[in-house]
Formats: sequence, structure tokens, C-alpha cells
Amino acid sequence: MSSPLPKPSSSLIPLPKDLPEFLAPFIPRLLNCKPFITLTYAQSLDSRIAAKKGERTTISHLETKTMTHYLRSHHDGILIGSGTALADDPGLNCRFKENGNQHTPRPIIVDPLFRWDFKGSKLQELVMKGESLEPWIIVAAGIEEKVQDKIEFLEKLGGKVIPLNLDSNNKLKWEDIFLTLKINGIDSIMVEGGAKIINQLLNSQGIVDSLIITIGPCFLGDQGVEVSPPQGVKLRNVHWWKGVQDTVMCANLID
Amino acid sequence: MSSPLPKPSSSLIPLPKDLPEFLAPFIPRLLNCKPFITLTYAQSLDSRIAAKKGERTTISHLETKTMTHYLRSHHDGILIGSGTALADDPGLNCRFKENGNQHTPRPIIVDPLFRWDFKGSKLQELVMKGESLEPWIIVAAGIEEKVQDKIEFLEKLGGKVIPLNLDSNNKLKWEDIFLTLKINGIDSIMVEGGAKIINQLLNSQGIVDSLIITIGPCFLGDQGVEVSPPQGVKLRNVHWWKGVQDTVMCANLID
Repeated sequence: MSSPLPKPSSSLIPLPKDLPEFLAPFIPRLLNCKPFITLTYAQSLDSRIAAKKGERTTISHLETKTMTHYLRSHHDGILIGSGTALADDPGLNCRFKENGNQHTPRPIIVDPLFRWDFKGSKLQELVMKGESLEPWIIVAAGIEEKVQDKIEFLEKLGGKVIPLNLDSNNKLKWEDIFLTLKINGIDSIMVEGGAKIINQLLNSQGIVDSLIITIGPCFLGDQGVEVSPPQGVKLRNVHWWKGVQDTVMCANLID
Repeated sequence: MSSPLPKPSSSLIPLPKDLPEFLAPFIPRLLNCKPFITLTYAQSLDSRIAAKKGERTTISHLETKTMTHYLRSHHDGILIGSGTALADDPGLNCRFKENGNQHTPRPIIVDPLFRWDFKGSKLQELVMKGESLEPWIIVAAGIEEKVQDKIEFLEKLGGKVIPLNLDSNNKLKWEDIFLTLKINGIDSIMVEGGAKIINQLLNSQGIVDSLIITIGPCFLGDQGVEVSPPQGVKLRNVHWWKGVQDTVMCANLID
């Protein structure tokens, strides 16, 4: 008799039964003029999302990991910055199935200089296996020539590069990013990090529609990667959920 | 007909009914060799205990303020650092009554150079009204002569100065402070801050017996006074409580 097959590492533990009702008011709805933006991340008590720069750190329990995939299943796109893409080599797919159906959101990486490489990434592996959509990369208009090889490889496998003009401060504008994505059919986006993006969006007016934070009960220490926006932020419609290890807070920002 | 009297500003709203049971495992018990140490504070989501250095910031809801006074009623002493004493001018008394009885803990200020002044403080006002005990000040041995006036005033009103030797790094040692307090009859101490003390104690082995953190749902921003210890800290026996606005976490440190 053969021994039981090991579970694939990509399996998720079940979603806690009370989570869908708790999350319901914060799930995307269709907006007219912009995509619905959910800002979500897991932090330690001392507001660190990683123990060190460039180091992937497990903070949340497996049940809140399942929650992340449940949330992904309700979004058209998952957006991260290039720093997170480079540090974590993330899969950015959705492994949550509802009634046997699996919805796959579009991975979107904001990477002005296209520093991240699709070739050899975990994401490429998943795309080849049909387990993730081809990523879209938001870059600064004008850099295309310098990263022609990367773009060719990406496009050959079905991915896309979206060049956007920089503003007067030499930055991409969040409004431009999100409106362009909306025009490209992305009506809801789950922004998952990293810290620089989170801190910017917490202080951007009228952009974030839902804020969902998992707090893991540990301290990562003052060398960790910190979430704390330049300005204070007040919240409304605050709801807390208790898990077996973590707590989750959902809220709306007061602009 | 006269209008109803305004409630005194010192009144507390009722303690939420489920809090005593939630807090019970974290309430002090008598230890042989050291006082029972509870480390407790209120923080924002981004782990700030104040919006600016030297600025008192309201983070927690009135019901978690009542919890603080309930916890104080179970301790022999309340300890803070000189920075907090100078910034907040705190009352450090206990306004929680159980069955009509009010227990008053001893205010203890760790102030190596005796920078804080009892004279003219909120604490002096409360002592004169019989609403707080006379404070004890932990100072560095040898500085007494320089602050003779402050000491005389304090002692005249029943307070006490406890001089302790500095260690080789020119610091007071937490072990010395707490053992000296134990010898002076203080069997349980609630440490309430500030950030410097909290960060030190989170990274001190075998000192903190209960950790109780209130998290208020707001961001105070990166100019705030931050709690994040130099090293990471793992916790065990983690319990979360949900209030109408805040969440409270109780836990023990893994040494």
C-alpha cells in the first residue's frame, strides 16, 4: 500500500466561518470613476511588515493567509511595488476556491525602472503552469529601451508593460496608475505592499476604499520594515476580528 | 429647579462586563523573589504612544481608560519614567472602586537626575486632596545634593527618594529597581511607559510577567513616539479583547 500523498504546499487551511460576514462591508463594489482600492497587509505589534529590508517574514497565522486569498478572489488585480517583488518573489495568485470556482486576479507590479525580472520568477513558474495570470508592469515612460529584453520576454508570455509619465517630482502618480488600470478593465485592486506604497496610500486622499490590517502578536524590532505614514490618519467604521492567533482590523479612512 | 450637576472630570465610565474575566490570568500574583511586573500602554496601529515627543495624545477609548484604572487597582505601584512625568504631568492615581473600596497604588518615577518636580504637579494636587499616595522617586546615587530642595519638599509631604547605584554603563539596572521596591513592600508594579522604558523592558529577560497593550484604530504618523524594541520579541498565551473602538492584547513574553 502506498503512503498517502503529501498535500501540495499550495493548499490553504479552511476560511474561518465568521470571516466572510465580517469582511462583507469591505469587499469591492463597482465604482464609476476609479477602481475600488483595498489596502491590506500584515504587521507586527510594532508595525513592522518584515524583520529586515528585503527579508520575507511570516507574521500571520495560516487562517489569515487563507483570508488573504479569499480577499484576492474578490479583486480584479493585486498590486505590489518592485521592492516587494524583488524581496519576496511572490506568487500573487489566488488559491481560494468558492463552490469549486477559482477567480484569478491580475498581478500588477509598480516598477518605474523595471528592476524586477519576470524571467525565472515564481510568478513565471505559476503562469507556465496556468496557475496565475501574466503580470502587468507599470513603468516610467521612456525607460522601455533600457529594458527591452525584459519587456520582450514578458510580452512573449502574454504579460504587458504600461508606461506612465512621471510627475514634476519624478514620481508616478497614484491617480494615473489607478485610472489607467480602470481603463484597462481592472475595477478592483488589492494593494499588498510594501511599506513605501502603504505609507504613501495611507496619506493619499480619496484613493483607499477599504483598509484591512492583520496584526500578528509579536514584535519584529526596530530594525524591521516599518509602516507609519508621514501624517497621522483617522479611521471610521472600524471593526475588529479575533483569530486563533491574530487580530484583523477593517476600516475606512477619513479623508 | 437647578440644572443637574456636571459630572466631575475624574469620573470613569463603567468597566465592560467581560473585561475582568479576560484580564484575570494577567492580574498580579505574589512572587517570591521579585515584584510581579505588568507592562501596559496604549498605542496606535503604527505603534506610536504619542503624536510627538512631549505631547500627551489620547489614543484609547474611555472604556479602556477605565480598564487602566481597574488594572491599577490590582497593583501596589505604578511606575513611569521621567520623560512621561514631564510630558504628561500625570495623576497616577486609581479612580476605580470595587464594592465601594478604592485601592491606591504608589506612584513611582524613575528619574535618575530628578528632573521632574513634585512641586506644582498634578500629583501634588492629588496628594494634597488625599486622592493619591505620595510619590517615590528612583534617582542615581550621588545626585542628592544637587536636588536638595526638590527632595526636601517631597519628603516634607511624605514622599521618598530612593538612590540607586548606576551600573558600568552609567544606567540604573531594572533588576536593582524592582528588587529595591520589593524590599520596600511593593509586590506588584504596573509599568506604564514611556517608550524608552517599554522598549528596554520588552528586551529584558525574566522581568515582565504580563503584557497588556491597547491598540487604538488610528495612525499617529512617523513623527510620533514609537514603541519598537531593539530586538524582536515572541509572545505566548496571547488573548485579544474587542472593545467598542479599541482592541486589547494580553500576553506573556517568551524569554
